[in-house]
Amino acid sequence: MQLNSITQLYIDYLQAESFNGDPKSLYDSMNYIMSLGGKRIRPALVLAGNQMAKGIVEKALPVAHAIEIFHNFSLVHDDIMDASSVRRGKPTVHKKWNEPTAILAGDNLLIFAYKYLLNYDGNNKDVILSIFSDTAVRICEGQQWDMEFAYTEGISEKKYLKMIEYKTAVLLGCALQCGGLTAGISEEHSKLLYDIAIDIGMQFQLMDDYLDAFGEESVIGKKSGGDIIEGKKTWLYIKSEEINNDTPSWYSTYSGEKRVSVVKNHWKTMGLDQQILNKAQEYKSDALIKIKTWEELGYSTEILTEIVDFLSGRKS
Amino acid sequence: MQLNSITQLYIDYLQAESFNGDPKSLYDSMNYIMSLGGKRIRPALVLAGNQMAKGIVEKALPVAHAIEIFHNFSLVHDDIMDASSVRRGKPTVHKKWNEPTAILAGDNLLIFAYKYLLNYDGNNKDVILSIFSDTAVRICEGQQWDMEFAYTEGISEKKYLKMIEYKTAVLLGCALQCGGLTAGISEEHSKLLYDIAIDIGMQFQLMDDYLDAFGEESVIGKKSGGDIIEGKKTWLYIKSEEINNDTPSWYSTYSGEKRVSVVKNHWKTMGLDQQILNKAQEYKSDALIKIKTWEELGYSTEILTEIVDFLSGRKS
Repeated sequence: MQLNSITQLYIDYLQAESFNGDPKSLYDSMNYIMSLGGKRIRPALVLAGNQMAKGIVEKALPVAHAIEIFHNFSLVHDDIMDASSVRRGKPTVHKKWNEPTAILAGDNLLIFAYKYLLNYDGNNKDVILSIFSDTAVRICEGQQWDMEFAYTEGISEKKYLKMIEYKTAVLLGCALQCGGLTAGISEEHSKLLYDIAIDIGMQFQLMDDYLDAFGEESVIGKKSGGDIIEGKKTWLYIKSEEINNDTPSWYSTYSGEKRVSVVKNHWKTMGLDQQILNKAQEYKSDALIKIKTWEELGYSTEILTEIVDFLSGRKS
Repeated sequence: MQLNSITQLYIDYLQAESFNGDPKSLYDSMNYIMSLGGKRIRPALVLAGNQMAKGIVEKALPVAHAIEIFHNFSLVHDDIMDASSVRRGKPTVHKKWNEPTAILAGDNLLIFAYKYLLNYDGNNKDVILSIFSDTAVRICEGQQWDMEFAYTEGISEKKYLKMIEYKTAVLLGCALQCGGLTAGISEEHSKLLYDIAIDIGMQFQLMDDYLDAFGEESVIGKKSGGDIIEGKKTWLYIKSEEINNDTPSWYSTYSGEKRVSVVKNHWKTMGLDQQILNKAQEYKSDALIKIKTWEELGYSTEILTEIVDFLSGRKS
């Protein structure tokens, strides 16, 4: 199967599994966030992991769904924490309903993620539940780090990389690994899938930081500089501050578009635009080496290669 | 064992299991809410259920802890939703830290509740996980109903009873039932434990409504009338509105202590003070009949009788 086929398989499952219950507002808000779309990359990774380990793809659907539900739980709660009004061009849950409903919708989504895993009837169920729980904890930790970074100066690169690993990459790792586990492979082999997806996730997040600052509007589908205007602590900010103590003062002196041009100029002079591309490339190379090892174990890699290409060439 | 012994057993376990991790603020806030105390009635019910079914009490500790963690998750999130500043005389988590930290602390507590259940290694694990998840969903639904009632007039008694069942009683039911299940009894027998604790929970909540309006300060440990000042939709409000359409207008005409005396007078004239006591007594009688059935099955009831007495004579 190819990426578009497994994604479609998941989307059909998602539509058949829409939530149903009372009070209506609670379940409407859960269905609303689930229906906002996106690339469905996490469930696709679960099904891809299953296919790469030569499993029966349908068996992995409840696990794929659990991970997509968990992802949507985190979106709903993150949007409250970040006070975001818009997601994918639509009002966020706490804007469309209200904050209490959004908190509860997130809570209920998290419980439903577990319900799908508990109802999953296939290979390695206990291992999957355990990996999922450990991942969920890391994602909470990553989000807390991210929020604390907002009012912390002098964050080390190591801490930043740990934060994006926890906040973003571990769920991709969990998705691909659990997909492999649904096909009945050993926990040991499945760890390779986790590591591969972590590398892909790290590359993805660093490219996100790069594109937000230096991407062409025609490629990223929006104006660049959003992170700079927001004062977000990205890899570029962290490294810039490490090299040049003046970085925070550029942010306090300038704002808006002026800040974007001043900061981008400084970063280019420091060569950070190239450095972040190199860093992202390192993760991609690491992923490719591990994918090779995976192939040598006698497994398939076709669909994962397609996912890597898809993520590399993506609009943000 | 007696109630104070099993409660102490749980408190020792709780202290040994305090959370540990990074970022510190996340785990500090989780330990903070867990340490605020309270009666620890839910873990006590788990251990009581185990003892009533002649189990090995230590085996039930992870389940007892999971349910207490879940309860604390719901307190942290409810306090945000209700904009409460104080819990048990101390600042609430979102006041002591901030709202984003409180949201994440709650999320992480919910995940840890599952982690304890997943690490539980004893009788009926799958059944316990399934009952716990269904209960968790109901509690979210109950909280959403409760919030919607705040801006809804003409709520039926049936709907109100369903709300308090979901918001409060089901977790007590789940606790006693899961306790029984840890002792290895059948799911069928365990349902009787669930029903008993539901009745106890309903009686408890109705007595709470009664005492908040009519309780002596010396008995309830605080001034009565708080629910009336807040305009809370309790059983008394719902029934009062059902009998007399003027109820909402008393609330809009009067506020503070004046509202308390006007409303209480009306309720007494309608006989609602006695009616709610009768209603609570019905639930208690139902519980006692079921406890009798439980005894006839050859099980023990000693500790539960002690819990019922403890809850009946409690300070709010």
